[in-house]
Amino acid sequence: MAITTLRGQPFDRQVLDSMLRRRMFYTPSFEIYGGTAGLYDYGPPGCALQANVIDLWRKHFVLEEDMLEVDCTALTPAEILKTSGHVDKFADWMCKDPKNGDIIRADHFVEEILETRLKGDKTARGVKVVEKEEDPKKKKKKSKGTVEAVKLDDAVVQEYEEILAKIDNYNGEELGELIKKYDLKNPATSVQPEPPVAFNLMFQTAIGPSSNAPGFLRPETAQGQFLNFAKLLEFNQQQMPFASASIGKSFRNEISPRSGLLRVREFLMAEIEHYVDPQGGKKHSRFHEVKDVELVLLNRHTQLSGKTNVEKIAIGKAVADGTVDNETLGYFLARIHLFLKKIGVDQSKIRFRQHMANEMAHYAADCWDAELQTSYGWIECVGCADRSAYDLTVHAKKTGAPLMVRERLDTPISIEQWEIDLDKKKFGPFFKKDGKAIEAAIEALPQEKRDALAQDLKSDGKITVDVEGVGSGKVEVSKDLIVIERRTRVENTREFTPNVIEPSFGIGRILYCLYEHNYWTRGSDGGDEARGVLSFPPPVAPTKVLLVPLSSNEAFKPLVKYMSLKLRSVGVSSRVDDSSASIGKRYSRNDELGTPLGITIDFQSVKDKTYTLRDRDSTKQVRADEDTILAAIKSLIDGTKFWADIEKELPAFEGQEIDAEIPVR
Amino acid sequence: MAITTLRGQPFDRQVLDSMLRRRMFYTPSFEIYGGTAGLYDYGPPGCALQANVIDLWRKHFVLEEDMLEVDCTALTPAEILKTSGHVDKFADWMCKDPKNGDIIRADHFVEEILETRLKGDKTARGVKVVEKEEDPKKKKKKSKGTVEAVKLDDAVVQEYEEILAKIDNYNGEELGELIKKYDLKNPATSVQPEPPVAFNLMFQTAIGPSSNAPGFLRPETAQGQFLNFAKLLEFNQQQMPFASASIGKSFRNEISPRSGLLRVREFLMAEIEHYVDPQGGKKHSRFHEVKDVELVLLNRHTQLSGKTNVEKIAIGKAVADGTVDNETLGYFLARIHLFLKKIGVDQSKIRFRQHMANEMAHYAADCWDAELQTSYGWIECVGCADRSAYDLTVHAKKTGAPLMVRERLDTPISIEQWEIDLDKKKFGPFFKKDGKAIEAAIEALPQEKRDALAQDLKSDGKITVDVEGVGSGKVEVSKDLIVIERRTRVENTREFTPNVIEPSFGIGRILYCLYEHNYWTRGSDGGDEARGVLSFPPPVAPTKVLLVPLSSNEAFKPLVKYMSLKLRSVGVSSRVDDSSASIGKRYSRNDELGTPLGITIDFQSVKDKTYTLRDRDSTKQVRADEDTILAAIKSLIDGTKFWADIEKELPAFEGQEIDAEIPVR
Repeated sequence: MAITTLRGQPFDRQVLDSMLRRRMFYTPSFEIYGGTAGLYDYGPPGCALQANVIDLWRKHFVLEEDMLEVDCTALTPAEILKTSGHVDKFADWMCKDPKNGDIIRADHFVEEILETRLKGDKTARGVKVVEKEEDPKKKKKKSKGTVEAVKLDDAVVQEYEEILAKIDNYNGEELGELIKKYDLKNPATSVQPEPPVAFNLMFQTAIGPSSNAPGFLRPETAQGQFLNFAKLLEFNQQQMPFASASIGKSFRNEISPRSGLLRVREFLMAEIEHYVDPQGGKKHSRFHEVKDVELVLLNRHTQLSGKTNVEKIAIGKAVADGTVDNETLGYFLARIHLFLKKIGVDQSKIRFRQHMANEMAHYAADCWDAELQTSYGWIECVGCADRSAYDLTVHAKKTGAPLMVRERLDTPISIEQWEIDLDKKKFGPFFKKDGKAIEAAIEALPQEKRDALAQDLKSDGKITVDVEGVGSGKVEVSKDLIVIERRTRVENTREFTPNVIEPSFGIGRILYCLYEHNYWTRGSDGGDEARGVLSFPPPVAPTKVLLVPLSSNEAFKPLVKYMSLKLRSVGVSSRVDDSSASIGKRYSRNDELGTPLGITIDFQSVKDKTYTLRDRDSTKQVRADEDTILAAIKSLIDGTKFWADIEKELPAFEGQEIDAEIPVR
Repeated sequence: MAITTLRGQPFDRQVLDSMLRRRMFYTPSFEIYGGTAGLYDYGPPGCALQANVIDLWRKHFVLEEDMLEVDCTALTPAEILKTSGHVDKFADWMCKDPKNGDIIRADHFVEEILETRLKGDKTARGVKVVEKEEDPKKKKKKSKGTVEAVKLDDAVVQEYEEILAKIDNYNGEELGELIKKYDLKNPATSVQPEPPVAFNLMFQTAIGPSSNAPGFLRPETAQGQFLNFAKLLEFNQQQMPFASASIGKSFRNEISPRSGLLRVREFLMAEIEHYVDPQGGKKHSRFHEVKDVELVLLNRHTQLSGKTNVEKIAIGKAVADGTVDNETLGYFLARIHLFLKKIGVDQSKIRFRQHMANEMAHYAADCWDAELQTSYGWIECVGCADRSAYDLTVHAKKTGAPLMVRERLDTPISIEQWEIDLDKKKFGPFFKKDGKAIEAAIEALPQEKRDALAQDLKSDGKITVDVEGVGSGKVEVSKDLIVIERRTRVENTREFTPNVIEPSFGIGRILYCLYEHNYWTRGSDGGDEARGVLSFPPPVAPTKVLLVPLSSNEAFKPLVKYMSLKLRSVGVSSRVDDSSASIGKRYSRNDELGTPLGITIDFQSVKDKTYTLRDRDSTKQVRADEDTILAAIKSLIDGTKFWADIEKELPAFEGQEIDAEIPVR
C-alpha cells in the first residue's frame, strides 16, 4: 500500500526529511565532526514538540490517575541488570566479515541472502517478483547484492522458506550453521562472515575509580521503578492498585542503526508500571469509562495464519471474548489509543498488534504493541505488556527485599496444612555442621511431600530427606527430632506479589510518526508543491502563534511587543517574525514549523486595535478586536473549539496573503 | 556561623535528611542492592518539585527571551571532548593505598593530613583550636585520623600553611612529591599512598559494536549546543545576539562522592549559551530592566586578601565600576538572582562569588558563581562564565566548520593592507612537490611581516620565507614569482566569532538548597518539634492542595471527587488523603511534603457547599463557598496574592485541627 500525506498526496520521504532538517526539528548529532550513526539532536521546534507531547502525556496518564512519578538514574550497576536478565539476554548476534571488518547482524544477514536467492529463483522461473507487503516485525532493508537469476531445486526453495518463517527463533550457533551449510557470502567481499558472537546491546562503563564496579546505561526505565516498589507502596499508604511512572532517557547500542529517527542509540521513554492484584481477573475500576472505545486489532491467531487482517472492535468486547487477556490491559490499550489520537496520530494509520507466543518474554501473560504506519512500514511505538510478577520476584529473590503486598483480609481465612516442628535443642547438636542445610531442606518441603513423610514417620519412626551436598545426599531424621502434623491456622492478612501491566512509550518514534502523519504540501490545494505544511493539532504544536507585522514600519513595533507580552501572560507561546521577507514567505516558513495560527498586525490594527487571525491549514483569515482574537486562540489551543467554529463566529478577512514586499511610506 | 532553619531554630541535618527520605523526596538508587555512592532517585514529591522548578526556569529564561532550546545526546564521541579539552584536563589526581586498596583523592589527602598536623601543633602549643569558617571553595571533609599533639618547627608550620594556600595549583607529580617529602601516611593503614595518577572524571563507553569508537557521557550539556551553533544562527535568521538553552542529564565519575545530594555522579543541568558580539563592550539591550537589582557580591580582590566580606550592591553599579566585567554578564547575574528568589531560595543565604584568576579556565574573561549557604558550607549552584570565543574557535579549527557570524555593515569600511599575489603558472612548476606547503606559509604571513618582506623584495629582488619541513626550512622566492602590494579594499560585511556568556544551573544542588532553606519544625510555634514543615513557595510546591474529608463517611465522597476534578480542570495539582488517620496527622504528613494549601470537606460542606481552606505555614483556616475558595487558590499559586491577603478577605474558620479520630455515625 502506497503511503500518502495527510491530504492524500504521494508521500516523498526525502522531501519531508530535508524539510525537517532545514527547519531544525532534528539534526544528526556531531554533524560538523561527521556525525555518529543512531544519535540525533532536536532543534528548537523538535524540542518544543517533544516538551508538549510529554506535557500531555503527564496530564493524560500521571495526573489523571494519580500515578507516582519517579526519576531514577540511567547509570545502573551490572548486578541489577544481571538479575533482570538483560546481561544475559539483551543481545543480538553479530558476525564480522574477515576481509573488510564489516560488522553484520547475523539474523538480518541470513534473511537477506536467502531472500535474494529466492528472488533469483523466481526470476529464473520467469515469475514476476512482486514486493510483498512489509512484514510488520521486520525493518525493511535494502537487499544486499544484486539478484542473480539462478534456479533452485524445489526442495531447496522449501527449505529456504521454512528457515525464513522462523528466522527469529535461531540462536547464534544455529545462525552460524546456516551460514556454513548454505555458503552465505557477504556480497561486498564474496566471503563468508565469521561465526556469530553475541553482542550485548547495553552501553557498558565503570562506576567509580576502581574497575571492579561495572555498570551499564539502562536500556529501559522500568528497573529503577521496580527497585523502588516497596517505598512507593509505602508512599501510597499501602493502597493497591497503583502505578509508578517515569520519563527519561534510555540507551541501546544498536549494531548498525538505520531507519533515521526510528532506530537510535539514545532515546526518551515514558513508562508506566501499573501494579495489580493477580487474583480476581485483573479488573480495572475505570474500565467502564473506556469500554466503547474502538481499536483496530491484529490478533495472534490471524498472524499465525500468515495474514495481517485487522478488525475494529470495542475494547469491552475484545476483553469479553478473550482476545485481550484482562480488563487492566484493555483499559490501558484504550487509554493509549486516546492519547495517540489527542496528539495527532492519523487514525487510519494505527493498529494494535498482539505479540506472538515466541516474541514475548517467557514470563509475559499477554502483550500488544501500538503500531503506527509510516513509509518504513508499521512501527512499534508503544508496547503494552502484562509482565506478570516476574520483575518483582527476581529482585526480591536476589536481594531478600520484601517486594510484596500485605493485605488485611476482611474475612479471616483458615488454612489447614501440614506443619513441621523440629526439636531445635537436639537437632543442631545431632547434625552438627550439616544442621542448617538439613533444616533448610526440611522447611522447603512442599505440602504433598509432607503428607507422605508424615505417613513414613508414623510407620517407620524416621524419614529420609534429600539434602544436596550432605553425605550421600540422603539424610535420615528420626522421630525424636521431628514432628509432622496437620493443623488449622487462621490468617488475617494475605501476602502477594503484584503483577505488572506496563505501557511503555518510545517518544522519539511517536514524534517521527507525527511528522509523517501531519505532513502535506500546498500542492494539494493547487498551490506550490514546494511549500510544506505540518498540521500538528494546536495543543502539541511547537509554537502556537506567529506574530507578523505587515512590514518593518515603526508604527507596528509597539503593537507587536504588546501582543507578544499579552500572549505570554495567558500562557500561549508565540514567535515574532519581523524579518524583511514577504508576509507570504513568513507564513510559509511557519507552516513548515507547524505553527497553527498567525496574527497579522497592519495599518488597520494601528488605527482600531483589530487583528487578523490566520488558520494554517486553510490559510483562511478572520478579523476581530484583541479580546475576541485572544479568546479564539485560547479555545483553539485548549481544543474546545475548531477553526470551523471560529470561521462561523467571526467575520472573514479577505485580504490575500501577499508574496511581494509591501511598499512602506 | 551556625545554620538555622527558616524560623531560626538550630538546624539538624540528620533530622531533615531522614524526613526527606521518609517522604520519598529522594532515595539512594538501588538501595535494596546496597546502593551505589553518588547515585540517587527522586520519588514523587522530589520529582514534582524538580518538574516545577524546570517549568519556572523555562518560563523565566527560555520563553522570556525567546531562547532556542535544544536537546542533544549525552553520548559523545571522544574526539569532541578531546577538542574541548575534557579528555586531557577534566581529571582529578588519585592515589591508591598499597595496603588496603583504598582510592584517595590526592589533593584532599594532602590537605587533610597537613591540616591535622597543624591542629596537633596548635594543641601542643596550648592554642585553642577553633574550626575556622569553611573555605567556600572546599568541601568539608571529616578529617582523617585523630589529632596528635605534636609541636612543629615554626618554619614547618609556615611551609604547611603556604602549601595549603595554593593546594589547588599542584599537579599530580607535585602532589606526589609533597606526599614523599612530608611522609604523609593514610591514617587507616599507616602507609604512604602510591604516587598520584590522573583519573578522568568522564564515564567512558564504546559507541557501536567495534571497539575503535570510544565515547563518553557528557560532563556538561554545553558542547552539543556549541556544535549546533551555525544551524541555530541560521534558525534565528542570522540575528545576533541570541541564546541557546538545554535541560538534560550530565555525568561525572566522582572518585569518592560524599555530601549526599550535593556531589553526585548523574545530575540534571540547565544551561544557557548566550552568544554576543565581542565588539562594543558586550552591552545588553535589557540591562536597564535589572540595573537596580541588588546582589551580594564576594569579589576577587576581597578573596585575594584572604577575607570573605561581601557587599550588597546594585548590578548597575557593579558593572559601572568594573567589578563585573560587562553588561551581558551582569544582566544574567541579576536574572539568576531573580530566578533563585522566585523559587524560594532564602535571600539571606545567597551570594555571588567571583572566580579567582587561577580558578578560571585560561580562556574565561570573568566568572561568578551563585553560591547558596547550607549546612555543608557555601555551595556553588549556578555558574555564570564569560567563556569568550574559546569553544567555537577550537571546534571550528578542528573541523573547518564556519562557526562565526557574518554581519552586513551599514557603512562599508575600507581596509588598507598588504596583499600577496603569486604567479600560479610559474610557482607550482618551479617548487614542484613543495609548492603547496610554501604557498600556505606565504599566505599565513602576518601584516607586519609582509611589510618587511615587501621592502626585501624591492631591495633584493627576492624574499626568504620560513617553511617548516621544506629543505633547510628557509625558502627563497624571487620577484618573478611574487608580488607584495599595499592595497585598499572595501568590506561590506564583517566576520567574527561570538563570545559566549554561559549561565549553568545544577538543578539537583538547587533542589537540595531549597530543602534546607524552607525547612522548619512546629517546635518554633511551641508545637511538636517532631513535625517538620517545608515552606516551598506555592508555584514550586510538589502538590498544591490536599483534599481531606473529615472522615470516611460516605457523604463526603462525591464532594471529594467533585473538588478533585474541579481543581484538575483549572490546572491545580491536588491529592486526596482519605485514610483513616486523624485530620491533624493527615495535614502533618502534607506539611512535610510541602503542600501549601488544604481543603477540608466536612458536614457543613455537604449542607451548603462551603469549604475550609488551610494555610500550611500559619495553620490558619478560612471558610467560603466553592468559587471563592478556588479563586483564592489560583491567586496564591500564581503568586498574585499571599495568605495575608486571603486572611483579610475571607472569614476565619476557628475549628481546631483535630488529632483524635472523629467518631462517625
